[in-house]
Amino acid sequence: MSRERDFIDRLKPLARHPAARGLADDAAVLELGNVVLVLTHDMIVEGVHYLPGDPPGDVAWKLVAVNLSDLAAKGARPVGVLLGYSLDVAAERDTAFIAGLREALDAFAVPLLGGDTVQTPAGAPRAHGLTAIGEAPPHGAPRRAGAQAGDILYMTGEVGAAGLGLAIAKGEREGPAEWLAAYRRPQPRLVEGQALAPLVHAMADISDGLLIDAMRMAEAGGLAVEIDLEAVPIPEGADRMAAITAGDDYELLFAGPGNLSLSQPHLAKISAIGRFTSGHGLSLTDRSGAVPLPERLGYEHDAP
Amino acid sequence: MSRERDFIDRLKPLARHPAARGLADDAAVLELGNVVLVLTHDMIVEGVHYLPGDPPGDVAWKLVAVNLSDLAAKGARPVGVLLGYSLDVAAERDTAFIAGLREALDAFAVPLLGGDTVQTPAGAPRAHGLTAIGEAPPHGAPRRAGAQAGDILYMTGEVGAAGLGLAIAKGEREGPAEWLAAYRRPQPRLVEGQALAPLVHAMADISDGLLIDAMRMAEAGGLAVEIDLEAVPIPEGADRMAAITAGDDYELLFAGPGNLSLSQPHLAKISAIGRFTSGHGLSLTDRSGAVPLPERLGYEHDAP
Repeated sequence: MSRERDFIDRLKPLARHPAARGLADDAAVLELGNVVLVLTHDMIVEGVHYLPGDPPGDVAWKLVAVNLSDLAAKGARPVGVLLGYSLDVAAERDTAFIAGLREALDAFAVPLLGGDTVQTPAGAPRAHGLTAIGEAPPHGAPRRAGAQAGDILYMTGEVGAAGLGLAIAKGEREGPAEWLAAYRRPQPRLVEGQALAPLVHAMADISDGLLIDAMRMAEAGGLAVEIDLEAVPIPEGADRMAAITAGDDYELLFAGPGNLSLSQPHLAKISAIGRFTSGHGLSLTDRSGAVPLPERLGYEHDAP
Repeated sequence: MSRERDFIDRLKPLARHPAARGLADDAAVLELGNVVLVLTHDMIVEGVHYLPGDPPGDVAWKLVAVNLSDLAAKGARPVGVLLGYSLDVAAERDTAFIAGLREALDAFAVPLLGGDTVQTPAGAPRAHGLTAIGEAPPHGAPRRAGAQAGDILYMTGEVGAAGLGLAIAKGEREGPAEWLAAYRRPQPRLVEGQALAPLVHAMADISDGLLIDAMRMAEAGGLAVEIDLEAVPIPEGADRMAAITAGDDYELLFAGPGNLSLSQPHLAKISAIGRFTSGHGLSLTDRSGAVPLPERLGYEHDAP
């Protein structure tokens, strides 16, 4: 078990309020008056969640996008963000951060409401946090738990481009600009999440890797899940096993009945990629039958 | 101008939503449905906002307290917090952090709703963030702006003990245990803030020092403020000028009519310490007349 997961398990006794959803979900869902709030806070640390050489504007974009992706997984409409920012040693890099922050907030039509700015000791890796506040969809925010035996596992878009983009950013390979963009400027599936929320039995975003996030959804529902590897959309030229264990794609993963479709033409493609059954654990198949699980199912760094 | 303040000024064009209050207040105040939310996020950085040797449970307490103090300044009732925590290299220090977090959340009856846990590179100073969510008082959350010419400047409790406690924690002096406790386990004035909110014209917490926070309140209201030094309650044995420029006391500072009093006996003492007049700037007096301003009015590290 990762240090993060162990720590979160030890926080659970402090989070008995129903809004905390047992710290098992992408976001908290808090009823207050006639409003249902969806609340999430993710941090990113230099050298851990982003590369020291990543352009500051892209770091800002990603900080916004990963938090809005948690709102998307709850079908929430974003209403604002609070920023916790550690100043750079170079003021022009702060300026570039603000420019990327503005682009992200404009792109997703979310206002900055407040936050905090701090200095860190010179030379230390910096950490930034963002809190996103959203309003839950009218018929309730889907949970990570909730899949039913017989449900189909679906996903939006494709997985793997961000992982390839990370390899490009590290100088380990070359590839098209859209892979690098998938890593540096992910697009949270806000519109899709809002459209899907009334239709699904369970939903989460794919932040740590398709396999690990699918297994967590099955575990949360007390079920087994089987994924048909050939049904998973991946970028042309990508290694399939790398794509399904890479993180940072921020697509939506959801469980629902077999006839589920999104009728609006401007939304991301959805693909049926597997099935929930009674039992437990994750299994993989392709046309030749069962496929062994890879040793690593995804990243563990991103706690829910 | 400090780096933090300059950065916040450059964020202001991104924060035009009225809930952001121009980034000039202790917290955002967001109307949603029939609810008015008060939202704040503060970060603390090892070696900047706390000493590497501070007990982890006290760091947790302080992280909760400083954010709840921002809610107190808006007269808000806390409804929950989100934690952004950077793991220690030593797991037992994480355990101690959780214990202090639990004590603070229990003491102020606030639930943990969610958040994030991250690893930081070994040896790097760590940063933690906390978002506090509250509900505004029925008749509205006071602003930092709002003082009127002729208003009296009031404060709760006394200032200076936390600064003395910091000196004890650094090994620079000795002193009673309550000074160290004032630094390590500050008590946000939640009950007082809720009681005062309907009575005041402006309110803020004293986080960076009495003088700097009083000057900010005057500036926000387009007024001058004069403080009667001998009216400011300070701990017995404290240096007066040090006490009024020390931070971290988390008392409330507010403007209101001359006859303002808190009738409930269990609340902190309130003291009338000065007066707002037309004009601008901060001036100090004692029984012998005008007193020159000290060079440093308080800390600049804590952005609103």
